[in-house]
Amino acid sequence: MKISAESIWGDLVRIRESAPLVHNITNYVVMNPTANALLALGASPVMAHALEEAAEMVTMAGALVVNIGTLSPPWVQGMHRAILRAKELQIPVVLDPVGAGATPYRNRTLRELLEKGGADIIRGNASEIQAMVDAEATTRGVDSSAAAEESLQAAQSLAERESCTVCVSGAVDYIVDGAQVYRVHNGDPLMTRVTGMGCTASAFCGAFAAVNPHFPAAAAHAMAVMGIAGELAMEQACGPGSLQLHFIDAVYNLNREQIAAKWQVKP
Amino acid sequence: MKISAESIWGDLVRIRESAPLVHNITNYVVMNPTANALLALGASPVMAHALEEAAEMVTMAGALVVNIGTLSPPWVQGMHRAILRAKELQIPVVLDPVGAGATPYRNRTLRELLEKGGADIIRGNASEIQAMVDAEATTRGVDSSAAAEESLQAAQSLAERESCTVCVSGAVDYIVDGAQVYRVHNGDPLMTRVTGMGCTASAFCGAFAAVNPHFPAAAAHAMAVMGIAGELAMEQACGPGSLQLHFIDAVYNLNREQIAAKWQVKP
Amino acid sequence: MKISAESIWGDLVRIRESAPLVHNITNYVVMNPTANALLALGASPVMAHALEEAAEMVTMAGALVVNIGTLSPPWVQGMHRAILRAKELQIPVVLDPVGAGATPYRNRTLRELLEKGGADIIRGNASEIQAMVDAEATTRGVDSSAAAEESLQAAQSLAERESCTVCVSGAVDYIVDGAQVYRVHNGDPLMTRVTGMGCTASAFCGAFAAVNPHFPAAAAHAMAVMGIAGELAMEQACGPGSLQLHFIDAVYNLNREQIAAKWQVKP
Repeated sequence: MKISAESIWGDLVRIRESAPLVHNITNYVVMNPTANALLALGASPVMAHALEEAAEMVTMAGALVVNIGTLSPPWVQGMHRAILRAKELQIPVVLDPVGAGATPYRNRTLRELLEKGGADIIRGNASEIQAMVDAEATTRGVDSSAAAEESLQAAQSLAERESCTVCVSGAVDYIVDGAQVYRVHNGDPLMTRVTGMGCTASAFCGAFAAVNPHFPAAAAHAMAVMGIAGELAMEQACGPGSLQLHFIDAVYNLNREQIAAKWQVKP
Repeated sequence: MKISAESIWGDLVRIRESAPLVHNITNYVVMNPTANALLALGASPVMAHALEEAAEMVTMAGALVVNIGTLSPPWVQGMHRAILRAKELQIPVVLDPVGAGATPYRNRTLRELLEKGGADIIRGNASEIQAMVDAEATTRGVDSSAAAEESLQAAQSLAERESCTVCVSGAVDYIVDGAQVYRVHNGDPLMTRVTGMGCTASAFCGAFAAVNPHFPAAAAHAMAVMGIAGELAMEQACGPGSLQLHFIDAVYNLNREQIAAKWQVKP
Repeated sequence: MKISAESIWGDLVRIRESAPLVHNITNYVVMNPTANALLALGASPVMAHALEEAAEMVTMAGALVVNIGTLSPPWVQGMHRAILRAKELQIPVVLDPVGAGATPYRNRTLRELLEKGGADIIRGNASEIQAMVDAEATTRGVDSSAAAEESLQAAQSLAERESCTVCVSGAVDYIVDGAQVYRVHNGDPLMTRVTGMGCTASAFCGAFAAVNPHFPAAAAHAMAVMGIAGELAMEQACGPGSLQLHFIDAVYNLNREQIAAKWQVKP
């Protein structure tokens, strides 16, 4: 699918009109900004992790977003349950492998989530994606230390192995699915100084996948909207605190002209 | 009790002067903005959910606010323990039935919290209140899909069944207790695009109930202050991000003149 | 060690250049603002609490910050595990005894964390530090009710008993270690109306301790940066909502001239 300002705008309008429910099982640090960003986008966030209800909650959702940032055994059980139900019902699943490679527990959990359930889109930074294909790679917490360009190959390996779309975010975001590659050049470096911007990107992938069954295009649209809103926010921001606020306002107010003027997605 | 600008202001002054401790067992998504809103109001928030201390913590509180947004069994145990102690000590209990009707687990938990403990004020959106009186009703996550006006009857049924005050928030907020009804017309639709505004309203009901034993009036005051602060914030907001910030500032700076100029509470 | 504008600036530059990983096991309420404040400072926050990975995660860290704000047994297990590993590896440990004295469970947990592991820096408000040395003292949730000046003696007792640095924050912050006392006069009273400012101060103590092995100086530098950024933020703030945003921006933009103009640390 060819990405254009019109294809980005079209999906955004679909989200605003249908307000898809995005079910998030995510980490404690980013729950609040993730929910706010999804609301600003026009989606309808829900957060519910307990084994007792994760499967029922996902049945109403347009997408499931699983993020292992602050994982623990009871949460991982809820993630498994929700992913299995989502797969049964063909609800798109986005996996954010926060801190992949940082600890054996994270690596094991990611492997089990993929083996027993799977994901339609995996979105992480370069270090995380690298760690998912190379057991020897280690990451430093949630930072990205590998160069994004270098990890394009890792993304392609992971996409092939898991038969899914892989999105590596960085200065340029790479969205890979089989032979297809999209490069999103939007965004601003200061966004890395706001916690949860990557997690928000994953949640946006979920919202776009809820209205667009072509997952690589959905992910590219999501990353473009993230980046464009970040660039617009930077026009008013004086630091990461004000960037976060203006980012939410920019997502909410994003219009066709702004997308047309700023989008930078290349094959 | 008759609501007036003076009665709203009087309770607000009492909160600012006595800084009542409001004990919250609430969901992960909204803990931070709830604590900030209570601090801006002049109350003193505390969050403590563990079974090991929930009962002791509530003994110091002016009110207990229980919110099931991201419930799980260990948290529900803490909620039960805290509610029982609050009831023993006649500390007002506010219940926020987030997502009522979305899953059987939520419905069962709400039923047990009410049967084994009870609440003095239940505050939810129209869908949630509807779901609590009609087991057949289903909600869509945390959204409000039922029309508020239609659910006035549901609120009255629930208030009667549970012998408590019920507050249904929406374009117009209805506060119901027996034959009494207050209608709060303050607020702005953009507030629904900021996560946790409903949860903050419940926390405010707790703070006002801590200084005013007439619970329907306390709830009406709380909803009026929410709505007025929201309207004042809208005068400066450019989207939901800046609305959230200006809302906190507006609550903190709220004065008698602003209340007198804007309050819209009708019988 | 003598504190000066240059010593504060020197540590800040070291943090910005080395981006030390600060491992936080902290409370749900403040995770988001703590992570954002650490990112604005130039540090690299990670949050991981599970017993399954707490020890591995800390091995990569420049400092460990443990905060008991919303404690529960599984989290306390993770705290113990992380502290033990940090002690083995001589990674500095900061302990924030949120709500010390409020419940027996908190007091018992603090005692066990100190007995089985220990801390290099303990940072709390006056009530909390008082409660840690006087089992009869009771606090009121997370508020500070004791006068800071009066609790200087408590800080000295605690510092001696635990052989560590103790920081009591308040209108004046006292940093005590053996016979040494630093008094930080920076800050603004409105900062107490933003939730998590104390927890952020503890996280900053961790970041500074990661680059400065003289822990009392590290803590004094951290408190000075907190206070100076708060004062700068107040120049633009209209309430606690905007204070929080401008605080993050001020931390991010803090420069040598601002520190030189505003620092107020006395022996």
